[in-house]
Amino acid sequence: MLYPNNIKKTKKQVVNYANRGMNLESDLNISNKYYLENDIAVIYKKPTPIKIVKVSFDKQKNATIKEAFFQTPSTTDYNGIYEGQYIDFEAKEVNKDSFPLNNINSHQIKHIKSIIKHGGIAFLIVRFNKQNKTFVLKGETLIKFIDSNTRKSIPMTLFVEEGFLVKTSFIPRLDYLKIINEIYMRRL
Amino acid sequence: MLYPNNIKKTKKQVVNYANRGMNLESDLNISNKYYLENDIAVIYKKPTPIKIVKVSFDKQKNATIKEAFFQTPSTTDYNGIYEGQYIDFEAKEVNKDSFPLNNINSHQIKHIKSIIKHGGIAFLIVRFNKQNKTFVLKGETLIKFIDSNTRKSIPMTLFVEEGFLVKTSFIPRLDYLKIINEIYMRRL
Repeated sequence: MLYPNNIKKTKKQVVNYANRGMNLESDLNISNKYYLENDIAVIYKKPTPIKIVKVSFDKQKNATIKEAFFQTPSTTDYNGIYEGQYIDFEAKEVNKDSFPLNNINSHQIKHIKSIIKHGGIAFLIVRFNKQNKTFVLKGETLIKFIDSNTRKSIPMTLFVEEGFLVKTSFIPRLDYLKIINEIYMRRL
Repeated sequence: MLYPNNIKKTKKQVVNYANRGMNLESDLNISNKYYLENDIAVIYKKPTPIKIVKVSFDKQKNATIKEAFFQTPSTTDYNGIYEGQYIDFEAKEVNKDSFPLNNINSHQIKHIKSIIKHGGIAFLIVRFNKQNKTFVLKGETLIKFIDSNTRKSIPMTLFVEEGFLVKTSFIPRLDYLKIINEIYMRRL
């Protein structure tokens, strides 16, 4: 199966696929809700793109989708506005010591490049599950790595050296905008 | 049926619902594609939010969604970046001489207010089908109308007087960013 970012899954993984990225995703959702409710930023996860094939209606005319397929996303999962700036990012969890580049499809790379070109802030949030560490990696650093390497994955050391560790706390769960503020907005 | 913005549909309309807003939506998609390919802006329509209940897998492990429901959107349909600015809008077609406010749900109104507060550009694009006229209405004008009126719809005259007519042409089909540039970026 190819879903949704060309990551092949074994049968066992398929069973659990609904929870893939659940922890990071749920941390981000809780943090974004906190940012929204406290008027810090307006950032949402985009819905999963789905191609609807068949819809049925009951007697009360409620629609139920009876057949649909997952589509490959052409943009990143999250975007919004923070301090008047356009923010755009993709979030991924990995279970290895490196970040496999097939986690990000070519449309998403192109999208990140476009956002940077148009003056937006684009980055990755990657959680290394084994180490329980979450990093922000600037889109610029990602592009530079891809353009200067033939490697199929980014070693965690690059995240340690050129990325920015995001601390988890109680409120907000994952204060990634603190990092974004520091690395993009307080330039000296 | 209530879908997706609490607009009641008759049986006949339900049959055609897949084409609802098709013309404006397709004009916007073509225009956004043009903006993207010509490096003018990066603006996408968000996927329709769907709650997935049941997924099945075939022998090749391809996923098919077997049961899912439409969810009410809490944000607007379109967002992106233009000239370094965060852009956010909702697009609607109407068949009357006025724009019924139940086309926009309360979460979307709140969202528009938040975007403006955070320094983004938020607006509506409304096409009056009978008159074949498409207008940009600033989010600020929409909020002002809602806050100072008990009316359940905005008359087209408000769009004529306080909105901005978007001309349709060959390329791009609907050059709404020209209007956005004029009303938000060339302030004297």
